[in-house]
Amino acid sequence: MPQFLAEPIARLIDEFGKLPGIGPKTAQRLTFFLLRQPAGEALALADAIAEVKEKIIFCGRCFNLSATDPCHICASESRDRTRLCVVEEPLDILVLEKTGIYKGLYHVLHGSFSPMEGILEDDLKIAELVERVKQGGVDEVIVATNATVEGEATANLVRVRLRPFGIRITRLAQGLPIGSDLEYADDYTLSRALEGRREY
Amino acid sequence: MPQFLAEPIARLIDEFGKLPGIGPKTAQRLTFFLLRQPAGEALALADAIAEVKEKIIFCGRCFNLSATDPCHICASESRDRTRLCVVEEPLDILVLEKTGIYKGLYHVLHGSFSPMEGILEDDLKIAELVERVKQGGVDEVIVATNATVEGEATANLVRVRLRPFGIRITRLAQGLPIGSDLEYADDYTLSRALEGRREY
Repeated sequence: MPQFLAEPIARLIDEFGKLPGIGPKTAQRLTFFLLRQPAGEALALADAIAEVKEKIIFCGRCFNLSATDPCHICASESRDRTRLCVVEEPLDILVLEKTGIYKGLYHVLHGSFSPMEGILEDDLKIAELVERVKQGGVDEVIVATNATVEGEATANLVRVRLRPFGIRITRLAQGLPIGSDLEYADDYTLSRALEGRREY
Repeated sequence: MPQFLAEPIARLIDEFGKLPGIGPKTAQRLTFFLLRQPAGEALALADAIAEVKEKIIFCGRCFNLSATDPCHICASESRDRTRLCVVEEPLDILVLEKTGIYKGLYHVLHGSFSPMEGILEDDLKIAELVERVKQGGVDEVIVATNATVEGEATANLVRVRLRPFGIRITRLAQGLPIGSDLEYADDYTLSRALEGRREY
């Protein structure tokens, strides 16, 4: 950071710049925005950051981020305990919950199988998933990893590990996103949409 | 925020969402990014926010944000004290300093004249600017307010207020930005570029 900035300002720009998708210009803009705000409002952000790091833990069952263990989803009486939805990251649970359709439990792998980047099976919560299934009561595991190369590899790995238990293993449908033009779909998406076509 | 999120997480998403240009999706992404980070790195951001609010004050001369009063620019022996560059916001000083061309002092108005939004002359540091000029020693005031309607109105107001002192008052040139195609220039910019044409 340039020397003509007061050190605390340069430091905050630097810290904002470490966030994903925040470039140097945006980091500057956010910093000067907070400088213009009343102290209370800026400190509310600082406090909120400190609070999540202090209070948020992993659920010991599904490995979701939570203020309680087990998390409120695992603890809920109203969830369908025969289904497990396997996701890569805690944020994926938020996205799925917002649809309001899924009523089962979750299992967060905390990453995707990616040997090229040094992320191997043991780095993911796969053994823990196998253990949950082994304990019984699960009829279906819905693999909701990303529709990427790593997500596919992870889904395959999960399927291989769970195959011995004879339960239903499903994967989220892949195809055209709603509202999209066929014209702009890429080849891979179109191929998947064709392969996965349904009677109508 | 949805009830299925732990309260500290929902709160941090909410706080991030109050920042300019940060929508709900980005706020989620930033929150879950910080949750994945080691506590030290996330808390460094919280600390940096607290530190700027604690240590940064306004320079009593130019109203720049600074850790010292007067700020390091006003206090510097090497700056040209006969020139004042008038800007709307402290961030504008950073942008101008990065060019490395300007060696004079600054004056931050902290806003632009905008009666429609209830920002009147008394809300800006215009009286303080007049007072600085009145004290003598200033030969030129460069008005570097934004090239917007409000910026123009502010520049006019500054010019009217400083006219009695008989000093040189200049305004940043307006015209085609470097690297731009004539083809994509808007009418107003082209008009200004034509009006401001120079011998070549």
